[in-house]
Amino acid sequence: MTGLLTDLYQLTMAAGYWLAGKVGEVGTYELFVRRLPGNRNFLIAAGLAQAVEYLLHLRFTEEDVRYLRDLPQFAQTPPGFFDALPEFRFTGDVFAVPEGTPIFPGEPILTVRAPLMEAQIPETYLLAMVGFQTLVATKAARMREAAGARSVVEFGTRRAHSPEAGVLAGRAAYIGGCSGTSNALAGHRYGIPVFGTAAHSWVLSFEGEVEAFRRLQELLGPATTYLIDTYDTIEGARRAAALGQPIWGVRLDSGNLIELSHAVRRILNEAGLHEARIMATGDLNEYKILELVAENAPIDAFGVGTELATSLDAPSHGAVYKLVELNDGKTKRYTAKFSDDKHTMPGAKQVFRFPDRDIIGHAQDCIQDGAEALLQPVILKGKLVAPLPSAAGIRSYAARAIELLPRNLRSLFPCDPPRQIEYGPSLLSLLDSLKEQHRQSLP
Amino acid sequence: MTGLLTDLYQLTMAAGYWLAGKVGEVGTYELFVRRLPGNRNFLIAAGLAQAVEYLLHLRFTEEDVRYLRDLPQFAQTPPGFFDALPEFRFTGDVFAVPEGTPIFPGEPILTVRAPLMEAQIPETYLLAMVGFQTLVATKAARMREAAGARSVVEFGTRRAHSPEAGVLAGRAAYIGGCSGTSNALAGHRYGIPVFGTAAHSWVLSFEGEVEAFRRLQELLGPATTYLIDTYDTIEGARRAAALGQPIWGVRLDSGNLIELSHAVRRILNEAGLHEARIMATGDLNEYKILELVAENAPIDAFGVGTELATSLDAPSHGAVYKLVELNDGKTKRYTAKFSDDKHTMPGAKQVFRFPDRDIIGHAQDCIQDGAEALLQPVILKGKLVAPLPSAAGIRSYAARAIELLPRNLRSLFPCDPPRQIEYGPSLLSLLDSLKEQHRQSLP
Repeated sequence: MTGLLTDLYQLTMAAGYWLAGKVGEVGTYELFVRRLPGNRNFLIAAGLAQAVEYLLHLRFTEEDVRYLRDLPQFAQTPPGFFDALPEFRFTGDVFAVPEGTPIFPGEPILTVRAPLMEAQIPETYLLAMVGFQTLVATKAARMREAAGARSVVEFGTRRAHSPEAGVLAGRAAYIGGCSGTSNALAGHRYGIPVFGTAAHSWVLSFEGEVEAFRRLQELLGPATTYLIDTYDTIEGARRAAALGQPIWGVRLDSGNLIELSHAVRRILNEAGLHEARIMATGDLNEYKILELVAENAPIDAFGVGTELATSLDAPSHGAVYKLVELNDGKTKRYTAKFSDDKHTMPGAKQVFRFPDRDIIGHAQDCIQDGAEALLQPVILKGKLVAPLPSAAGIRSYAARAIELLPRNLRSLFPCDPPRQIEYGPSLLSLLDSLKEQHRQSLP
Repeated sequence: MTGLLTDLYQLTMAAGYWLAGKVGEVGTYELFVRRLPGNRNFLIAAGLAQAVEYLLHLRFTEEDVRYLRDLPQFAQTPPGFFDALPEFRFTGDVFAVPEGTPIFPGEPILTVRAPLMEAQIPETYLLAMVGFQTLVATKAARMREAAGARSVVEFGTRRAHSPEAGVLAGRAAYIGGCSGTSNALAGHRYGIPVFGTAAHSWVLSFEGEVEAFRRLQELLGPATTYLIDTYDTIEGARRAAALGQPIWGVRLDSGNLIELSHAVRRILNEAGLHEARIMATGDLNEYKILELVAENAPIDAFGVGTELATSLDAPSHGAVYKLVELNDGKTKRYTAKFSDDKHTMPGAKQVFRFPDRDIIGHAQDCIQDGAEALLQPVILKGKLVAPLPSAAGIRSYAARAIELLPRNLRSLFPCDPPRQIEYGPSLLSLLDSLKEQHRQSLP
């Protein structure tokens, strides 16, 4: 994986650390969100597996180095820096909350402790990868919450921000609680169940709907799901019902889903197809699902695209990656940013989870009775500590972790009061002494 | 590029076309948006080059085929389909508006005419690729419009929906009018200018701000851009100014940008650094830029991240890909979807652009005086017709095309009346006859 997939300033700063003799200086960086996006009471951490994959395989090819050498920003950089780049390896440590963990503002999702240059270059990639998958896993958990016992399937690749984002959205949505994805590559790559129905173009490509349905049944057998709204949903349902078994079900994709689902259910039942399912699609989100469930619409599965793969109501949560500690081998130094609207908290952290609250403490704080320490070592000295769990394993873990949250946090609307998040005493005194030190250093 | 990066139903439908003996039947599919997302008066088409790259290199490996064979949805598919998959090639035609063209609802951005299976499988990838880049190019054009003579640089990879989306956002933003990107891989891959400053972690990693600034100047020389808000923006500006030449400028990243930019400009000028630029960053969008420009804030360049790379206010425009014509070698058939809220228009189209309006006509309509036909052949019989323009070439073309639009369309607010888009008479009569035919076919 090319080291060029980052912001240029990460590379100029890397050169700067090299030039300033800071090659051996170790920095600790934390990736976290400052606040929860609209209506969310927690986020579901996701994307760690791909972040780890990247760190373990991050390289600069000779071609990458040639490109960088010729940039005006590197005109003054000594050649020694470029000579060293092909040997670049990530040799540091990574601590992270397990994928699927509910997390809150200020809590590190992952922590990188590595020589400054090695920790700086990955910032951009880590934020984009963990940030995006966390967005989608969170949105999926909300759909799952709304759907109750009914299933939700991720159908959004076409509306994702690039095809590759669609593959990752399939993974993250599954982690967050979807039953599967329509994305075949996500299915293959991550071992996720894949689902599909048929398109309007399938129906249109035959002379009539009956012929299109018959051909689909011949092809898919018990997996057959008819898309019945190409011409008229009720007519479509009658034509589908007339074909009898085998059938998985039908898909509604337009119109009033409450009325149509009841009417279509009756048609299927009258044909003796009591087991045939009804899937609904078409710009669904957690609130529309909630309404359909509340209205008792006989819908067995929801297919969700745009809203899920783009986290449409909150397409960003503004995750950041901040330097909190420095160690040059002789002394340890804590760092924080004091500007009014974007301050940070110094010191490497651990998140201690109690049933009713979290305490963000110093990484070296002892764990208290009744608490769980969320951040665990994932990479030590550039080596993976243990194999990472499968997407299916992460999905089960997430489901259990969400179940363990206080009920009010699982609301699809902002809960008041929100989760209680406190800083531990050791961190607070670290902040005080750093502020005092900073005040004294002012002229 | 693997054929698995698509929705599963594209692959089951492909098998269905094969099974139904429709291998030789040619379908024409159009990719377009149904309506403009919030506040936009046009979109800037982008992503064609990557769509073409995909179509020319779309393949199924033996491993891909093994995965598909084992899926329950293919349990009834004859082995002949799978045996043929490794030989799959896109052998069809693609017509498209040049990247950088302003487009409107209903106007095909690209048209695929190919054997049904070859046209169906790429739907998902084409929508995600062209859809996303079009979103970002459009958003960039709005930033460009707001910024006037000042430059806008794309800084959003960290907030993009995956690292790869960040690379593509860099390209699309440049096409839409940004001066460049912070993404080094986008710079290398697409020949786009790259820019960067320094991070808070750089400043924090040194004992004091002066030391951090001095080291940066030593490293970057005339490209030096100090990030001055780590501790206090005004203090930071004084420290930067005291270091004198060489300097490119300073970056403001928090606080009241209008007040701070004036204050910082004075500090730089008093130090004789009249040529030093001020760059502003921090959750900017076209409206905030417009306000800063209207207030005459002495800001020379805007760095835009989240809002641009995620098209934050409109993260989707719901592009679709619809079958409009079929040709089985003997007869041509036109197709449309009649469901109330999602109808489509039959027949392959051409967009005729007049200065004040567009006419969406049939692909075979003659061009009228004063009109430009926007859709051009790009791939014919699976072969690229001519090399595609560079990102820089597309950017110039887009800038000219936007300049040629009526002034009211370039507003950042919805213009009333919107662009006049008419369907040509041949298309309208096609629709009428198809509706009549459909009515007659009803029982």
